[in-house]
Amino acid sequence: MNAIYPGSFDPITYGHLDIINRASKLYDKLYIGISKDETIKGKLFSISERLELTQNAVKDYDNIEVLSFEGLLVEFCNKIDCNVIIRGLRALSDYEYEFKMALMNRTLNDDIVTLFMMPHERYTHISSSLIREVSLLGGDISSYVPNAVSDALKVKFE
Amino acid sequence: MNAIYPGSFDPITYGHLDIINRASKLYDKLYIGISKDETIKGKLFSISERLELTQNAVKDYDNIEVLSFEGLLVEFCNKIDCNVIIRGLRALSDYEYEFKMALMNRTLNDDIVTLFMMPHERYTHISSSLIREVSLLGGDISSYVPNAVSDALKVKFE
Amino acid sequence: MNAIYPGSFDPITYGHLDIINRASKLYDKLYIGISKDETIKGKLFSISERLELTQNAVKDYDNIEVLSFEGLLVEFCNKIDCNVIIRGLRALSDYEYEFKMALMNRTLNDDIVTLFMMPHERYTHISSSLIREVSLLGGDISSYVPNAVSDALKVKFE
Amino acid sequence: MNAIYPGSFDPITYGHLDIINRASKLYDKLYIGISKDETIKGKLFSISERLELTQNAVKDYDNIEVLSFEGLLVEFCNKIDCNVIIRGLRALSDYEYEFKMALMNRTLNDDIVTLFMMPHERYTHISSSLIREVSLLGGDISSYVPNAVSDALKVKFE
Amino acid sequence: MNAIYPGSFDPITYGHLDIINRASKLYDKLYIGISKDETIKGKLFSISERLELTQNAVKDYDNIEVLSFEGLLVEFCNKIDCNVIIRGLRALSDYEYEFKMALMNRTLNDDIVTLFMMPHERYTHISSSLIREVSLLGGDISSYVPNAVSDALKVKFE
Amino acid sequence: MNAIYPGSFDPITYGHLDIINRASKLYDKLYIGISKDETIKGKLFSISERLELTQNAVKDYDNIEVLSFEGLLVEFCNKIDCNVIIRGLRALSDYEYEFKMALMNRTLNDDIVTLFMMPHERYTHISSSLIREVSLLGGDISSYVPNAVSDALKVKFE
Repeated sequence: MNAIYPGSFDPITYGHLDIINRASKLYDKLYIGISKDETIKGKLFSISERLELTQNAVKDYDNIEVLSFEGLLVEFCNKIDCNVIIRGLRALSDYEYEFKMALMNRTLNDDIVTLFMMPHERYTHISSSLIREVSLLGGDISSYVPNAVSDALKVKFE
Repeated sequence: MNAIYPGSFDPITYGHLDIINRASKLYDKLYIGISKDETIKGKLFSISERLELTQNAVKDYDNIEVLSFEGLLVEFCNKIDCNVIIRGLRALSDYEYEFKMALMNRTLNDDIVTLFMMPHERYTHISSSLIREVSLLGGDISSYVPNAVSDALKVKFE
Repeated sequence: MNAIYPGSFDPITYGHLDIINRASKLYDKLYIGISKDETIKGKLFSISERLELTQNAVKDYDNIEVLSFEGLLVEFCNKIDCNVIIRGLRALSDYEYEFKMALMNRTLNDDIVTLFMMPHERYTHISSSLIREVSLLGGDISSYVPNAVSDALKVKFE
Repeated sequence: MNAIYPGSFDPITYGHLDIINRASKLYDKLYIGISKDETIKGKLFSISERLELTQNAVKDYDNIEVLSFEGLLVEFCNKIDCNVIIRGLRALSDYEYEFKMALMNRTLNDDIVTLFMMPHERYTHISSSLIREVSLLGGDISSYVPNAVSDALKVKFE
Repeated sequence: MNAIYPGSFDPITYGHLDIINRASKLYDKLYIGISKDETIKGKLFSISERLELTQNAVKDYDNIEVLSFEGLLVEFCNKIDCNVIIRGLRALSDYEYEFKMALMNRTLNDDIVTLFMMPHERYTHISSSLIREVSLLGGDISSYVPNAVSDALKVKFE
Repeated sequence: MNAIYPGSFDPITYGHLDIINRASKLYDKLYIGISKDETIKGKLFSISERLELTQNAVKDYDNIEVLSFEGLLVEFCNKIDCNVIIRGLRALSDYEYEFKMALMNRTLNDDIVTLFMMPHERYTHISSSLIREVSLLGGDISSYVPNAVSDALKVKFE
């Protein structure tokens, strides 16, 4: 059985990687789907930068493939023969958004199941946007992202 | 007694119509007040499109009138002789916003009462913004909006 | 049109009375329905004490009647010809409980509508149980309950 | 891969069965684990009644086995060779409890993953305790539980 | 300036000790106030056991004193010349309860200020009741409580 | 001991001043730190206007100093020899944001403690953004902000 872990990954954090590590053990193949969606503003890294940083972060896993996608997630799932969507649940605000997306996706395609995982408590308060914000202000975020991401953030904000 | 159900209605959904249907039975006259407020960005439909789509959706009700308004809601209520504001409560995030608006409106005019209704569970996870988002990506939202809205969304996103 | 404001009223507080005062202006008749339900433990005042304290607190309103009831609320509504249930919403925890009760009551009788009101901010953090708790410890709760209730609490805890 | 869906099932509802139906398609074997835990009070049905009602509700599934268990869930998982725990997430209050249990279980055994599913919106406001409460008051709960459960509730409350 | 950190401490956890350690640096004297309140049921440890386990856990701090108290917290604060109440905020459910207690205490004595601290993320999902629950089932809770507490729990549940 | 109360103060409200008044009694010196951060859009008042309105509002306090800052808050704290950050907690949405910022700041500098205070219930539903919104629409916000702020808002929106 295959699963997809979709998101923006702008940039990928240890919180994402905690979910990825655990999910990779549960499925034959785990796709990481990076959304090209242009309606969500404020992207710091381009889609090709996000693909590269993410691929680099998961290069040691045999059963993980990083892909970009656009359009409806459930249609992309069909295309790549994937019937499980993995999402992380950190905090309350996630919960509301995830709840409505999971129910909407169920309406759009009832054969695809959304499963939620909670990241390690070390990462429940971390998000890509907080990493970007702290990094912009010159804070040290090396305990929350891989070195390559930390370096890429430094380059961006210099 | 008259009531007003204010909102953006960008576009009107079956969630709104569920509230409207139930509220229409409780008051002599139910106004649907569409805000012209330009400070809230991201409107998909113009005020005249929203008026037309909403009027079309409620054309079978005798005691409903669709109006646009600008400025303070409580002052508009005074102008149209209306002392009840109806608001839908779907989810947690609604709750916080509605709470502070209801208390502020009470400060501004203590004679006007805000009453909250919960939509049918079929519609608790639906919002106009989710409808716009899914529709933009080509998803089928016909089970959540009237046909005229569904058609208007297709035209917008083609 | 008639409405009912149901609850335990153990004891009635100024938070309840704020809701009652506003609701009384919106309906021909407002019933206050005190639940005899024995499954909810921890009642401090007996049903007859709660009836008396509540009746005393609303004795100046012409269109309010205080009743006790048992069994399903929606069936009691039918019996007294009442199609609106008024509930106060103070806080988040209320929200979850009220949400599920409103949807269940809608399933049980679709003709009865639950409407929610938010009490004045002075009373959003007050509940009967907090009043009982503070009163038990000897705290002064006279700014949150009518004098008769304050006196009754003193008698109980002596 | 095997999964377990643990709970009290006092009694089993269509909300549970919605989760069970979807989870059964994702795993080779799905265990339903009914907790014998005596520390949670207020059980209406005995452990043998709950086993029977639950087994009856899932008798048409080939890959489901209903078991009772006591002690730590993660140790029971080890015993039955199961490394996925399935939990339903309906509402906010669930969220908090599930969050802390998932993190505690991760501390107790890092090889076992908790996955969360959201039930159909028809069932997000339903819980076993609400079913018991409405049933006790004589309300019709037949749209939320299997017939056998509905009958068993009637017998209990007569 | 003196502060009090009140609670049940049934038993004291590393979550409490994280708050205590940080608070002890901010005040001349930090009182730990263990409530004798008998209205909250389900105490595992007696008041003298809780006093002993707590004193043992903070014995290396020069400016901490462990006391038991009964009655209103704000009156106890007056007695020991303390105008700051320290409370930990872990999760949402804490938030609601703490909010109403802080506002009530402010009403009871406006000179006493409640300050909230958030524990380290390692401990946000830990509570005394979860520790008791897991310990009762035989789980290893040694990473969340001092050794003396861990031993005391083993003795209790044997 | 010194503390800082950081924020945008766009504009300062009686909710802020309630926190400031109470905090000023707890510390030798209370800094009010107005963020120059340009990443948060939608500022109505310039940094110099915000400094002036805030200074004017606290001019009667001897131990308060109003400063603007940019960059990481914890580094600014170091610069001004301040190891306590004071934040107000009004509502749920605050809670989530504050939680993650407090934990991130703790990671960035473990010697600085974030303490939360709850404003008076009169101000829990008030925020600078609501004040701006109501003021823009011509509503009377004089019960929530000092006269100078009220005047400045009128000038802005004329």
